[in-house]
Amino acid sequence: MSAGTLYGVGLGPGAQDLMSVRADRLIRSAKHVAFFRKAGRSGQARRIVDGMIPDSAVEFPMEYPVTTEIPLSDPRYNQVLSAFYQDCTDHIRALLVQGEDVVVLCEGDPFFYGSFMHLYTRLKDDMPVQVVPAITGMSGAWTATGAPITWGDDVLSVLMGTLPEDALVTHMKAADAVVVMKIGRNIDKVRSALRKAGRYDAAWIVEYATMADQTVTRLSEADGKITPYFSIIVVHGQGRRP
Amino acid sequence: MSAGTLYGVGLGPGAQDLMSVRADRLIRSAKHVAFFRKAGRSGQARRIVDGMIPDSAVEFPMEYPVTTEIPLSDPRYNQVLSAFYQDCTDHIRALLVQGEDVVVLCEGDPFFYGSFMHLYTRLKDDMPVQVVPAITGMSGAWTATGAPITWGDDVLSVLMGTLPEDALVTHMKAADAVVVMKIGRNIDKVRSALRKAGRYDAAWIVEYATMADQTVTRLSEADGKITPYFSIIVVHGQGRRP
Repeated sequence: MSAGTLYGVGLGPGAQDLMSVRADRLIRSAKHVAFFRKAGRSGQARRIVDGMIPDSAVEFPMEYPVTTEIPLSDPRYNQVLSAFYQDCTDHIRALLVQGEDVVVLCEGDPFFYGSFMHLYTRLKDDMPVQVVPAITGMSGAWTATGAPITWGDDVLSVLMGTLPEDALVTHMKAADAVVVMKIGRNIDKVRSALRKAGRYDAAWIVEYATMADQTVTRLSEADGKITPYFSIIVVHGQGRRP
Repeated sequence: MSAGTLYGVGLGPGAQDLMSVRADRLIRSAKHVAFFRKAGRSGQARRIVDGMIPDSAVEFPMEYPVTTEIPLSDPRYNQVLSAFYQDCTDHIRALLVQGEDVVVLCEGDPFFYGSFMHLYTRLKDDMPVQVVPAITGMSGAWTATGAPITWGDDVLSVLMGTLPEDALVTHMKAADAVVVMKIGRNIDKVRSALRKAGRYDAAWIVEYATMADQTVTRLSEADGKITPYFSIIVVHGQGRRP
């Protein structure tokens, strides 16, 4: 029997009709659908495809182990996550070996941050894998602001809020356009870095970009109003514009 | 009569089924379709939608004035382009005022570099405008390489080949992952910058990403084989991977 195919399917920023035609087809005809989520949550990826998955599809939620009490720098953090990804891989591999195709739902684009790549690297060498790119969350965010992110020769830098503050400041100063993701509990550090880089007043924060509950707010006016966990910060470039 | 709507529709990297469901619907039902191209060429945006536009649709090719003999730094460059964008705007505005919707085809994502934004800024304040984000060309390129562009806390910087070499080197050194676009006649400068930044051996060049004629080549092995005009250079990040 030939092995099934692992499909890493990018969902885009959130609106269902912003999925690609290819992703839409794969999801609507899927037999096995896997997705990451926090334990006890329905999961953002799963929420995006609500109503699209066939009733007959078998769902495989992959629930992150709780790691909030382990600092990123602690080797145990990587050990716990590595074991988790290996467990998920084993489950998916067993399906593929039986000839079943498996669709993994990926928020945004599968190869742009995210968790899919940890399954991908463990399966790509001996299983058929296809990756379907998607509209990134940041693209949804800058579209929501109603202004282009980059013009002419602008340099865009994409930064994670988990970086040290001095690294954030350096990159925020050097780039013309800036995107910050993984904000969450790093919001105060990110605000401080934007201030030190002189970019704070030009920053926007977009929550749930392209979805029904989308908000677009100047960061300087967002105090207490924004849940930063599904938010992206955008500072637009100001390059050449004939 | 109420005005028509200007739709800035991102086409994505090139494969038709990587367009969003929303873009697909808008293009297949369009009455007026505008797109940029070089004079004398069929145009890459128009080529991507071949077979999708209704026979009844009125097409409006917007042909860039020849500017290759004017350096970017010359004020005449901006003047010539500004007059061109104004002419295009006038034509589109006349249709909108008559209540006609107009779809502008945009390679990649409309707000990520590109030319659509020059129409957008001239029309957004008094005409209904909707922008449909899309998969970026760079996302198509990194997907084609079969390896994630960013992991963990990686910093991604997106650079235009039109930048001065020393600026390219500085940004190539500072970022973990690098994308270079607008390569064309800047290919030798970009190669030199990658060498000086110590990133040359890790660079890939992707031509016609996601399309039938896609090629993926190590830049160091691409001599003479690649037409750089529709190519994107990718240097992958090597961040945390549990």
